[in-house]
Amino acid sequence: MSPNNDFLAVQDFYSDVVSWCFGCGRLNPVGHHFRTRWDGDHTLTTYTPHVEHTAIPGFVYGGLIASLIDCHSTGSAALALYRRDGHELGEPEPIPRCMTASLTVDYLKPTPLGPELTVQGTIAEVGGRKVVVKSQLFAEGIVVVSAAVVAVMARL
Amino acid sequence: MSPNNDFLAVQDFYSDVVSWCFGCGRLNPVGHHFRTRWDGDHTLTTYTPHVEHTAIPGFVYGGLIASLIDCHSTGSAALALYRRDGHELGEPEPIPRCMTASLTVDYLKPTPLGPELTVQGTIAEVGGRKVVVKSQLFAEGIVVVSAAVVAVMARL
Repeated sequence: MSPNNDFLAVQDFYSDVVSWCFGCGRLNPVGHHFRTRWDGDHTLTTYTPHVEHTAIPGFVYGGLIASLIDCHSTGSAALALYRRDGHELGEPEPIPRCMTASLTVDYLKPTPLGPELTVQGTIAEVGGRKVVVKSQLFAEGIVVVSAAVVAVMARL
Repeated sequence: MSPNNDFLAVQDFYSDVVSWCFGCGRLNPVGHHFRTRWDGDHTLTTYTPHVEHTAIPGFVYGGLIASLIDCHSTGSAALALYRRDGHELGEPEPIPRCMTASLTVDYLKPTPLGPELTVQGTIAEVGGRKVVVKSQLFAEGIVVVSAAVVAVMARL
């Protein structure tokens, strides 16, 4: 768990062996440390890109946005499977770890570099091991990116 | 131009103001410095991920792969528009700079962390300002990822 944050994120509960992800692994010393949580029936990941995460000056790099969507979505899928099985973060049952099978990102508008970005996820489908997550990325209250991810629970 | 490399890449010729991309900008001091070139009628980008670019231990982070596909595809689109207009790298005419409108990445198999990755692009469609690039990512000779990107020439 991350004692320096004021909310619980799914990534705080991944087992150590699967917590090295460059995007969201709490043990990766140089990764982005994306953190994803429930917000009612939606999922939520916020992140403020760094100055080096530039596409063209003033705008956020699309690959960083795809990375944010990727980990947000696998985290959302893990939350959805855990809730489907009757659990909420903080319970002792192990959290599933999901991998991305497919990722689609539509860049609707240029994303300004500077403000905090908010990704809101909707759990569109939950199968046995498969979850479809649809997301919108907001910058200053405006939807700038929409995305869909198919995530699958890993057999670890 | 990058005098330390033994081939010309499209990113060597982007104007300075659009060469700060975290993925492929030659002026970004901490970026990935992806470099894309023609290989016959295909385009080619190679990259060896670093140890921190982990998903789960032993495999490459999907967000890094999406980043590689992103810059490979915008670079491929710039090459395609330049050739469409009768030019090849090394000529004095300015190179167009393209942005990603949509990105789809299918992770067919886990991508091993360690070997050099090769992305081969096919120019599927060239419109006035729009290019569709389809790509396959190879690790140790095996296709592990397929992708499609719609890229659009920026008005700068």
